[in-house]
Amino acid sequence: MNLGVIGLGMMGRGIAQSLLRAGHRVTVWNRTPSRAEELQSQGALIALTPADACKDGVVITCLSEDDAVKAVVFGDYGIANAVAGCIHISMSTLGLDLILQLNKTHSEAGQRFIAAPVFGRPDAAAAGRLLIVASGDVEAIAKCQPVFDVVGQRTIVVGTDPVAAPMVKLIGNFLLVSAVESLAEALALLRKSGTDPQACFNFLTDTLFSAPVYKNYAGLMLEHRYDPGFRLALGLKDIGLVLDAAESFDVPMPAASLVRERILTGIARGYQDKDLSSLALISAEEAGRRKE
Amino acid sequence: MNLGVIGLGMMGRGIAQSLLRAGHRVTVWNRTPSRAEELQSQGALIALTPADACKDGVVITCLSEDDAVKAVVFGDYGIANAVAGCIHISMSTLGLDLILQLNKTHSEAGQRFIAAPVFGRPDAAAAGRLLIVASGDVEAIAKCQPVFDVVGQRTIVVGTDPVAAPMVKLIGNFLLVSAVESLAEALALLRKSGTDPQACFNFLTDTLFSAPVYKNYAGLMLEHRYDPGFRLALGLKDIGLVLDAAESFDVPMPAASLVRERILTGIARGYQDKDLSSLALISAEEAGRRKE
Amino acid sequence: MNLGVIGLGMMGRGIAQSLLRAGHRVTVWNRTPSRAEELQSQGALIALTPADACKDGVVITCLSEDDAVKAVVFGDYGIANAVAGCIHISMSTLGLDLILQLNKTHSEAGQRFIAAPVFGRPDAAAAGRLLIVASGDVEAIAKCQPVFDVVGQRTIVVGTDPVAAPMVKLIGNFLLVSAVESLAEALALLRKSGTDPQACFNFLTDTLFSAPVYKNYAGLMLEHRYDPGFRLALGLKDIGLVLDAAESFDVPMPAASLVRERILTGIARGYQDKDLSSLALISAEEAGRRKE
Amino acid sequence: MNLGVIGLGMMGRGIAQSLLRAGHRVTVWNRTPSRAEELQSQGALIALTPADACKDGVVITCLSEDDAVKAVVFGDYGIANAVAGCIHISMSTLGLDLILQLNKTHSEAGQRFIAAPVFGRPDAAAAGRLLIVASGDVEAIAKCQPVFDVVGQRTIVVGTDPVAAPMVKLIGNFLLVSAVESLAEALALLRKSGTDPQACFNFLTDTLFSAPVYKNYAGLMLEHRYDPGFRLALGLKDIGLVLDAAESFDVPMPAASLVRERILTGIARGYQDKDLSSLALISAEEAGRRKE
Repeated sequence: MNLGVIGLGMMGRGIAQSLLRAGHRVTVWNRTPSRAEELQSQGALIALTPADACKDGVVITCLSEDDAVKAVVFGDYGIANAVAGCIHISMSTLGLDLILQLNKTHSEAGQRFIAAPVFGRPDAAAAGRLLIVASGDVEAIAKCQPVFDVVGQRTIVVGTDPVAAPMVKLIGNFLLVSAVESLAEALALLRKSGTDPQACFNFLTDTLFSAPVYKNYAGLMLEHRYDPGFRLALGLKDIGLVLDAAESFDVPMPAASLVRERILTGIARGYQDKDLSSLALISAEEAGRRKE
Repeated sequence: MNLGVIGLGMMGRGIAQSLLRAGHRVTVWNRTPSRAEELQSQGALIALTPADACKDGVVITCLSEDDAVKAVVFGDYGIANAVAGCIHISMSTLGLDLILQLNKTHSEAGQRFIAAPVFGRPDAAAAGRLLIVASGDVEAIAKCQPVFDVVGQRTIVVGTDPVAAPMVKLIGNFLLVSAVESLAEALALLRKSGTDPQACFNFLTDTLFSAPVYKNYAGLMLEHRYDPGFRLALGLKDIGLVLDAAESFDVPMPAASLVRERILTGIARGYQDKDLSSLALISAEEAGRRKE
Repeated sequence: MNLGVIGLGMMGRGIAQSLLRAGHRVTVWNRTPSRAEELQSQGALIALTPADACKDGVVITCLSEDDAVKAVVFGDYGIANAVAGCIHISMSTLGLDLILQLNKTHSEAGQRFIAAPVFGRPDAAAAGRLLIVASGDVEAIAKCQPVFDVVGQRTIVVGTDPVAAPMVKLIGNFLLVSAVESLAEALALLRKSGTDPQACFNFLTDTLFSAPVYKNYAGLMLEHRYDPGFRLALGLKDIGLVLDAAESFDVPMPAASLVRERILTGIARGYQDKDLSSLALISAEEAGRRKE
Repeated sequence: MNLGVIGLGMMGRGIAQSLLRAGHRVTVWNRTPSRAEELQSQGALIALTPADACKDGVVITCLSEDDAVKAVVFGDYGIANAVAGCIHISMSTLGLDLILQLNKTHSEAGQRFIAAPVFGRPDAAAAGRLLIVASGDVEAIAKCQPVFDVVGQRTIVVGTDPVAAPMVKLIGNFLLVSAVESLAEALALLRKSGTDPQACFNFLTDTLFSAPVYKNYAGLMLEHRYDPGFRLALGLKDIGLVLDAAESFDVPMPAASLVRERILTGIARGYQDKDLSSLALISAEEAGRRKE
């Protein structure tokens, strides 16, 4: 297939590389052109504008900032001003309001919108191992299946309502940060009480909690590894989107509020560029341990 | 082996049955004798006092109330007054203070104490499928290994400090109730927003959260099943033990406090005998849904 | 003085009436014209546009919705397009971002902006008994002092930075909702434990807590009075502004997050138009009391 | 009157001094005798046992530790073994369970029990300026009125149920720590945002929050004064009693749980002997300010 990729941060670059490696013709655009040029040597074509990246009829965006998405879609030379019939696949985690606005704009422009947020770190993107949750027009999704097959190890379609997949992504992120917060509090207690945290976490993540999220974050915390991965600043944005969604549906989520406050504490301490695993640092500091 | 089992609630009865089925000679004692008599037909002998149940040198207690444990150990005709050399295996979830007190008393009486709390529901006890975490005297644990092999699918020894295993149990319970609370809040948002909760939970518990705890409780909540299992009243006791331990080591655990308040809300509404899955009822009611 | 008043909700109407009664010439504008016409009989002149209400050089806005403020200031025929030299006094509670934006726009238009949010209920506005916190250009505030003297029982100037007064207002609102939440939880415990809540609250609000906020809300709660006053929906907006400000300065405020969740619980139960005192209803319901 | 005072910590000593100054004959007992001897020069008699301090028929206890109270009342030579007819006035903050146990024991011994917890710092005790909340037998309270008149500036009787006054005390403490926590969070935001905290707090505590609690703690925090006063370690004990009472009546109190976690954070950081005002230190540290 011929397609465009807009937004070449760590995720976008990985996705573009996966697609190139699979033999697709990929046209890329990035606000900072140097990142696009890096991909040229791997076979990517360079678009001069976002609209230009859509000329083959399918374009993927990987942009975590709302304003960046708006500029790329609604701006002059934006996707909404590109060819009718174009399919826009958004793979970022966006707020539900923006998702609805994108869907409306594309629909009015005779285009189609697929929300296809992903779970996975940048290395999973580059390896074509992402988990993809998609919602939107059935036929458009079917047409883009080859793209999903390359980028993801698994794609689940959760409905035609464009906000369905973004909601699943928000829920997944909420469960993730809650689980990490509880691991962090547990670890602080284990360490301060003199119980072997490795034995405890190994046992629990081998049995009741034998899930990738628990194994992964327990491992990072036990080894004092706080490099991203999933930056705390991004965690704050994501939990903010969860709380916005919850407020719009009048749903109290006290555990989400609590973890938002903890992440904000981390950011106030200068951990904005550390991994979500640094919630363990915060819990340790709250418990009076200065050095970890 | 010949051994005693004291405390024939759902867990204790299951354990006794597993041991009988495996060919051990089991002497039982229960405050309410009728429960002991039920096991007679399955081959159990009946002890007249707790001390009497220890005469073969190994006794298991399955008592969730602190006061019951104290009566059975420290009381007249209690285990501490039974034969020297006796090994007491406590399989309940107890507070760390009581564990230390038990260890000291048994040690002074020339006896040995093994803390061996278990994870699993009563049906797992009856099927010999519990997860056992043990700590205490190495030789005593080795001697009791045949007991653990019958009762549990897996036993992990986490050290000689008697509180080590109880701490692992408390941590496991804390991670459990936190995970269930986050599932409950997530479900309230999914339902109220019109996103298919089954699709969302199936996807997440097949991938990032593919652990028994998540699969089990997501399933119970999706099917509106709130029969215990793990009674909310017991959840309140257990999270109280976690917070007590945290306070004794000066470790703040805000997520534990939060879930304690939610469980208390459930109990105030009369859900004390429902399963922990009824946290989903509370989240739904907080979100204004009266009927689930 | 001659001046304009834009936004004739309960607060704006009260302020306009105070000014008219004091002999000022008042020109009013409201999106829904009927509210403006009601004031005609009391001597108000009617403006056809927001800009038209500024023609005498001083205009007050009382608009609680951000979008309404933006329409009235930035829109066609908005204040920013009115005469240079105009002073805009905003008496609503607005977010800090919008305050900065207003200040910048007015400054560029050769106008001056005073942030002068108020404490007090609509009856205090009509009686000229508001508490006013003002920040902005010193000379402009001095010129408007006669306005403040009529509308308020007391005006405090907290600096030239336009966000200073709005920040004081946000802090005041946060302390208010926190105090009300704590009274609500206390009342639930008093009632359920059978202790006389009236004796308790009377004693405490006569001594350690002898402040208007405590006397007022304790009284409302004891008498089961939940008519606004201060609507819960407005409380959610205000605590949201507090949390936004806190996030922008990287300041965790867990007590603010907690009370936001409680207010959201009330709104989910349909109490959006009840007074903030209805936090007592929520605490009572959490404690299992269905009827108050 | 002739009466005994048991427990000569800062509060008890102040109370004994007030009584001596007013001309009462006071017999004192303290576990550490040196403290009793200090009062001898001021005219106090020394008792050899707690029971001995009751020989005149009225005894006051000022003991903040449950175990100390139990030893003094239930122990050999304890008050319960002193003369029948004795009136025991407990002026400490005790848990409701212990209050009920004391009442029962005294009643069975033909004695009477008055719960009369106090509000005020040690200097208020020495100056006879405490606030006293009393509950218990009407006639006994009437008989002890001269004692209350000397020790307190004001005494309120809230009923014959012995737990009524302790409940009012717990509620007062809860409202206090909640108010202090909200001031602490507010101050962190004011300081980090560059708004003048003194101007803000002066305004608010002159108007809406013109109560001793707010004036006192805002002043302490603004001046970075963290000497007790009300030790954080005692605050943890007191909020624990509130939560215990709430649990016993099935009343969720999330704001109480939250402030408990904050106090525990302070204790983990070594602030156990600082004043409750040090909640401002915690909020500042959470917001990333290392030096205050």
